[in-house]
Amino acid sequence: MTDLDVRGARRGRAARRDRRSGGQTAIATPYISRNIPLIDFLSDEGAEIVEANADRILQEIGIEFRDDPDTLKIWKDAGADVSGERVRFDKGMLREIVKTAPSQFTQHARNPARNAEIGGNNTVFAPVYGPPFVTDLDNGRRYGTIEDFRNFVKLAYSSPWMHHSGGTVCEPVDLPVNKRHFDMVYSHIKYSDKPFMGSVTAAERAADSVEMAKIVFGEEFVDNNCVMIQLINANSPLVFDSTMLGALKVYAAANQACIVSPFILAGAMSPVTVAGTLAQLYAEALAGCALTQLIRPGAPVVFGAFVSSISMQSGAPTFGSPEGTLLLNGAAKLARRLGLPFRSGGSFTSSKTPDAQSAQESAHTINATVLSGVNFALHSAGWLEGGLCSSYEKFIMDADQLGMMHVLAKGIDLSEEAQAMDALNEVGPGGHFLGASHTQRNFEAAFFRSEIADNNSFEQWVSDGSRDAAQRANQRWKAMLSEYEAPELDPAIDEQLVSFMTRRKSEFPDSNV
Amino acid sequence: MTDLDVRGARRGRAARRDRRSGGQTAIATPYISRNIPLIDFLSDEGAEIVEANADRILQEIGIEFRDDPDTLKIWKDAGADVSGERVRFDKGMLREIVKTAPSQFTQHARNPARNAEIGGNNTVFAPVYGPPFVTDLDNGRRYGTIEDFRNFVKLAYSSPWMHHSGGTVCEPVDLPVNKRHFDMVYSHIKYSDKPFMGSVTAAERAADSVEMAKIVFGEEFVDNNCVMIQLINANSPLVFDSTMLGALKVYAAANQACIVSPFILAGAMSPVTVAGTLAQLYAEALAGCALTQLIRPGAPVVFGAFVSSISMQSGAPTFGSPEGTLLLNGAAKLARRLGLPFRSGGSFTSSKTPDAQSAQESAHTINATVLSGVNFALHSAGWLEGGLCSSYEKFIMDADQLGMMHVLAKGIDLSEEAQAMDALNEVGPGGHFLGASHTQRNFEAAFFRSEIADNNSFEQWVSDGSRDAAQRANQRWKAMLSEYEAPELDPAIDEQLVSFMTRRKSEFPDSNV
Repeated sequence: MTDLDVRGARRGRAARRDRRSGGQTAIATPYISRNIPLIDFLSDEGAEIVEANADRILQEIGIEFRDDPDTLKIWKDAGADVSGERVRFDKGMLREIVKTAPSQFTQHARNPARNAEIGGNNTVFAPVYGPPFVTDLDNGRRYGTIEDFRNFVKLAYSSPWMHHSGGTVCEPVDLPVNKRHFDMVYSHIKYSDKPFMGSVTAAERAADSVEMAKIVFGEEFVDNNCVMIQLINANSPLVFDSTMLGALKVYAAANQACIVSPFILAGAMSPVTVAGTLAQLYAEALAGCALTQLIRPGAPVVFGAFVSSISMQSGAPTFGSPEGTLLLNGAAKLARRLGLPFRSGGSFTSSKTPDAQSAQESAHTINATVLSGVNFALHSAGWLEGGLCSSYEKFIMDADQLGMMHVLAKGIDLSEEAQAMDALNEVGPGGHFLGASHTQRNFEAAFFRSEIADNNSFEQWVSDGSRDAAQRANQRWKAMLSEYEAPELDPAIDEQLVSFMTRRKSEFPDSNV
Repeated sequence: MTDLDVRGARRGRAARRDRRSGGQTAIATPYISRNIPLIDFLSDEGAEIVEANADRILQEIGIEFRDDPDTLKIWKDAGADVSGERVRFDKGMLREIVKTAPSQFTQHARNPARNAEIGGNNTVFAPVYGPPFVTDLDNGRRYGTIEDFRNFVKLAYSSPWMHHSGGTVCEPVDLPVNKRHFDMVYSHIKYSDKPFMGSVTAAERAADSVEMAKIVFGEEFVDNNCVMIQLINANSPLVFDSTMLGALKVYAAANQACIVSPFILAGAMSPVTVAGTLAQLYAEALAGCALTQLIRPGAPVVFGAFVSSISMQSGAPTFGSPEGTLLLNGAAKLARRLGLPFRSGGSFTSSKTPDAQSAQESAHTINATVLSGVNFALHSAGWLEGGLCSSYEKFIMDADQLGMMHVLAKGIDLSEEAQAMDALNEVGPGGHFLGASHTQRNFEAAFFRSEIADNNSFEQWVSDGSRDAAQRANQRWKAMLSEYEAPELDPAIDEQLVSFMTRRKSEFPDSNV
């Protein structure tokens, strides 16, 4: 059986499974194709100012690539001005280099029905990434474990509005730091068939991730196609460190996608203004994206922006702020002008609990995400406490909101059926439309159905127990986990993965570094 | 002392008061002038389709004006086809009539520093309108009273982000239906100096409202200027009733602004689609707006849209939905094409409690409100339970969100100072910006400061009592009411208002109809 045969067989089984389970594990669509215009808070003239400032930063200040002589040599060979660890770039040099990067690419999933298109008019929703803590209403806040990790993978798989399985949906703190990547990548493969992310915490862990992908997809397929996407953060301001560079080089060489994302809290890691922050962010992201193209021209790469602000009173990070919206939107435009896919957005909040603050801040960010044309929206569900905590309830509430975004992104249907002139003629002044034949024909698909919102009367709500949205979400995630059925995985592949992990884990001692 | 002298003196005193109280009662700005582009979900071609369908509705189906022979005569004289209570309009007739309406007008406040510009690139935020119930975390849900009414007027006055005092901020159910309008209008005048709304529940109550405005502003000033704005709902589908028509005629004749707002829950009161609903809404709003111009050409009028959807499973109204966003946005475009100011938006939710659902639904609606270019945003703060309940805590959380919208609407500052190249040069790779001189120069005004969001660490939040956003808002509204100081009102005017109300109240018996 060839790899493609395997996937074809899997596809057939997955489709039957989806039908059997009443669509529970089905996704509505493997990604959103936006059919609505973008909003541009940064004019063309504004973008030119920002780009010119970034050119000056790159030429006059430069960027440091630390503890990585290999990367410095790559830059020197490419014609950059390397002085110690500081690298300076002539105007236009980096923009020329990134021209080999694709403006859109497919991230393959082990179930081809889940393949995600990253770039262009598409938006892919991926879950929260990175929190060391998890929380739920029953057990409160604690360190994440591999069981929590699996649970979030299962929830992302079960949500029809989540396109991607993500990466570090929480840190499995119960596993040794230097070996947990095996179990994380394996969990994504085993408990989901949506696309996923590989490890970036060391070059050799990146290499392990690629090896595991090759077991699933086949060596040649991986060399020719993107099957993993990875988060590579710049160490803002204007620094890349050897850990991130090590992972970037492994993945780019393997033709796998890097998201080069400055991680910026404006006011601390960048200037206290939107325009200044955008220039720095552009310089950092452009340099990292260009590096992937020097390693392997044509390798998929995404212009990333994790950018928010801090409270200038307390120094605490703030999320869902208006400045965050302007930054996200401006960065999206800069990426579009480079012809690169763009990553940003999410369900950001600094709240510690799934309350009104958490929902308000996340709603503002998700609106900005969709209306700004983000292509890869990491952190789309589950984020709490400035990214320190994955929340079970928040995950459910956010995913519900992503469902709404699917409807919004479709825009206004102007078909003859949608114009509904027959309904207007049938009902006339003072009537009602509930019984109209047009309503009967269309009501099932008519309006988005939230699984969390309570639209009932006050009296009904009281008689149902006066529960708030978080309490309803608590019931929902438990139901989803109890109804969860794993997608089928070829037993031969499963066995190969387990045997690879077992062997590799035995090759070096546990360590928490 | 002339009227203008009186207002000038008040302005001086108000400015001193604002300085004395550390800006507590100051408003940041009397309205937002948006400096960001609009988002258009309805293309020009789409708008033409909707308008053509509306023309067919107006010509072939028509609109009913019930129990109001006078209005039927006005239409007949204007050349419409009147048959019973049904009125049909030739294509283009109504668009021609509304050409006399201003595209932008000033609503004067008794403090001229609070005058609101309604139309163009401006957005005015007004509080919730209409709920019979009020709720707060301490006392729960109960019928509203005149004390609650005054409290919401005081909170709107005290919020720097609320431009308008509104109208029925809650129903003062403890006062007789046929006399409560006196106390409502008086409360707006006495406890606030922001612009306000008059009564629409009967023609004679509208006339009383105009009389009270004349006491404050002077008869001639009122005849020449807009000092009140009123909510006139259509009885969708395609009906106007005599109560609303009676109020509309009084206000239009007095040169005061009418907001002609179809009140539509799509699926019940309009077709189950966005495009069908927009055509109906356009027909209704256009007919009502045109009627004001037949009564007094040039009278200010606002194209309104209160439009959401229902759950097709339970029939319950839903708010903050993606369909609601598309409807709001499409209606905004239709109003712009008519050259009329547009009213919509608000802090919509069907939640019964100030929880995550309430915040999420409101955030989506407020985003749509600002990005769609709504000129008069009624219900901007305090709305709960599908508009049945004014919430003290939600009012505070919503107002905070309106503050964020002020920042968003300014867009991206591209001044040399905002470009911050000196900061980037000063700090360089690996540094931080907290101590940079550019940061020191700019940090105070740099980022929006929420009064409700908690951005602290989890540990700090726990040590502060683990309060959620609603609990923090509870503290905030109590502090605002206890710090409230009434704006000065000329004692002679106050006396005239009280004496007018006392006399009028004695002229007819109390009634709850």
